[in-house]
Amino acid sequence: MENPLKIGIAGVGTVGASLVNVLNNKQNALANRCGRRIDVAAFSARSRDKDRGCDLTGAEFFDDPVKLAQSGIDVFVELIGGEDGAALESVRAALKSGKHVVTANKALLARHGVELAALAEENGLILNFEAAVAGGIPIIKTMREALSANDITRVYGILNGTCNYMLTRMENEGISFEDCLADAQRLGYAEADPTFDIGGFDTAHKLAILTSIAFGSQIAADEIYVEGISNITNADIEAAHELGYRIKLLGVCQKTASGIEQRVHPTMVPLESEIAQIGGVTNAVALEADIVGELVLSGPGAGGMATASAVAGDICDIAKSRPGRQIAPALGRPAAELEPYRKARMRTHEGGYFIRFTVRDKTGVFASIATRMAEHDISLDSIVQHAPARPVEDGEAKTIILITDETTESAVRAAIEAIEGDGHLIARPQMIRIEL
Amino acid sequence: MENPLKIGIAGVGTVGASLVNVLNNKQNALANRCGRRIDVAAFSARSRDKDRGCDLTGAEFFDDPVKLAQSGIDVFVELIGGEDGAALESVRAALKSGKHVVTANKALLARHGVELAALAEENGLILNFEAAVAGGIPIIKTMREALSANDITRVYGILNGTCNYMLTRMENEGISFEDCLADAQRLGYAEADPTFDIGGFDTAHKLAILTSIAFGSQIAADEIYVEGISNITNADIEAAHELGYRIKLLGVCQKTASGIEQRVHPTMVPLESEIAQIGGVTNAVALEADIVGELVLSGPGAGGMATASAVAGDICDIAKSRPGRQIAPALGRPAAELEPYRKARMRTHEGGYFIRFTVRDKTGVFASIATRMAEHDISLDSIVQHAPARPVEDGEAKTIILITDETTESAVRAAIEAIEGDGHLIARPQMIRIEL
Repeated sequence: MENPLKIGIAGVGTVGASLVNVLNNKQNALANRCGRRIDVAAFSARSRDKDRGCDLTGAEFFDDPVKLAQSGIDVFVELIGGEDGAALESVRAALKSGKHVVTANKALLARHGVELAALAEENGLILNFEAAVAGGIPIIKTMREALSANDITRVYGILNGTCNYMLTRMENEGISFEDCLADAQRLGYAEADPTFDIGGFDTAHKLAILTSIAFGSQIAADEIYVEGISNITNADIEAAHELGYRIKLLGVCQKTASGIEQRVHPTMVPLESEIAQIGGVTNAVALEADIVGELVLSGPGAGGMATASAVAGDICDIAKSRPGRQIAPALGRPAAELEPYRKARMRTHEGGYFIRFTVRDKTGVFASIATRMAEHDISLDSIVQHAPARPVEDGEAKTIILITDETTESAVRAAIEAIEGDGHLIARPQMIRIEL
Repeated sequence: MENPLKIGIAGVGTVGASLVNVLNNKQNALANRCGRRIDVAAFSARSRDKDRGCDLTGAEFFDDPVKLAQSGIDVFVELIGGEDGAALESVRAALKSGKHVVTANKALLARHGVELAALAEENGLILNFEAAVAGGIPIIKTMREALSANDITRVYGILNGTCNYMLTRMENEGISFEDCLADAQRLGYAEADPTFDIGGFDTAHKLAILTSIAFGSQIAADEIYVEGISNITNADIEAAHELGYRIKLLGVCQKTASGIEQRVHPTMVPLESEIAQIGGVTNAVALEADIVGELVLSGPGAGGMATASAVAGDICDIAKSRPGRQIAPALGRPAAELEPYRKARMRTHEGGYFIRFTVRDKTGVFASIATRMAEHDISLDSIVQHAPARPVEDGEAKTIILITDETTESAVRAAIEAIEGDGHLIARPQMIRIEL
């Protein structure tokens, strides 16, 4: 058997401790599967002696992750987090000093992925990051390796467990967004500052990475249309259900005639679709490709163990690889050949729309709305008017829900603006895109 | 860029022609992604000049696949089919003469997989077979690579598109098994002799391969409990639906205290589960593992293009690999270290059961059935008695459906036998296992 693969772990929090436990507990099985032992040779962390619930006896301690990256290890595992600072510096240092890198850091890759991929290539090193997107789901490996011969045309997924947990509970228990968030924070499913998750930004980071691998384009995390879930009400969720849909926060990238769409927004998906069955903190990614057709992968998107599973899988792939002249490129194509990102404008997006109006009930209001839609060439698939059980008084609030046939974002926005100008609405209209 | 990877394709039917077209049409993109060109250097087939809808100009023709395997190619792609004969001989010849092998042949692997994996290892060669199980779904790569650090505890899946197509149509359209089969044959979704598919044997071949990779055990295709779908009636499908289940033909392997269970049978799965949403010819595989938890992968399980996608992905992995001293083992562990298969007896299987009795309605019949279940320590989760809308005449046929709590196969079989002995049944009872 060959020499052990010496790994250095930078950052030993929940994921790092889970990883150390997995590598320790399964040392023999891993050696058997990989053809060589995997040893945790060194680690870095803020403090040396904190009890982390894992055994690091015999592993050399570094207080500086850059020094760890430059030490006598074979693989640098970056679990520090953050898009710049120590994570970026230490990963650069590792690649410059001949160490393969495994990272779970989506922010780092969304910002510096192309630079780091190029650095890995120049030095003939592996840069693996399965855990950075959708946790334990092997979506990077699937896109980068299994679908090598495919041209991917669309990827969409539930990439944030916090949002999906909240939408699931709001639907199942009928509780409000605010109550649900407070509860999720109490249970540890949402951060004290939940903006990053519920605002859609976490999903956007992950989407940026998937887009680059899917389309062979440079990573463009700042070019993503992002809309979070904080405007979603129980009324939307119920109306969606009644019309055969469920609301999910999706990250979507797709190729269109005018460029690449990257968008994160609450989305209506058909109730009977696979993606609609993904409840709680589970993640799922669906992708469409020219040869294979459609694949859907689902599983745990976060958590120490699921993330450690992906990181350990990446390490095992390195352990199984052998010294050679060339390494498969980190983003699926050589970094130099990634195409410049060509953004499709959101206004050109085509799809169906769910629109909910709250109106003062008067004769002619519905006709006026229908006319505005027609003026913008929008045809309607379904119309639901919620009339109270008792006789409606003139001027009372009433809900009108429209499901449009396929149309464009610009037409929908213009129609809604015109309807708002007509003065019948007594609340801001709600607009949710439909994805099939 | 390195020398082109020269591949030889044995058997140019639907899959082979799709593969040639993919490799031809995407030559530049593949070279870019793999770092070297992939050339179809040679092929073998029954006849040289048949029009196959693909361009093989410049590829050398062999009428003997063994000769092709021994020629100047780098990778031998076996698409001949069959568990013995030319497929086996040519794959052996390829591995003995230093060629990497890619095959889509589940029967070959189910029968000779361990021998071929050992041969590949001895010669430092790659043996890839993603297309052999679940077509375009990257389940082999996921189990063999992404989950390297996991111990898998259970795998279950819809592995045969014909059966799933039939069950889906029987449910959606209320047509009988016989009518559905005739229609599937007319449409080309079922063979003229459909036994291999609807009898569950195709699923069993695939399951045997998954079991070996999941548990590190030798392949044991003859040790599988196999029950096909030909006894499934519309009454079962309707009753399942009423009780919150859908019937799928599943292949299941799982580790139990008494050994490994491998079973193929119609199965009740909860209506809201992901696996229940898989309709038509689509396949899906769910797996449970100690670190990652549960993953579900779904996609096209058959068809020329989906299969070609998996074969091409396997070829690309070889193109990206570099000459070295050792290769990751084909079945996830070195062939010599695969454990002997330890079979769990089907009678020890534990789970819930759906049982449908057709009885002559008389006072005391239900009490007698309930007593028999209790005598065998079987507790009941649900009971449905279908009474006609009109008053029931004494002695008329009536359906009684039971859903049991978790119990053992032996208890259920003994209870049914006792009930049959009591003489109230006027048709063979139906028993369908529940999988959660």
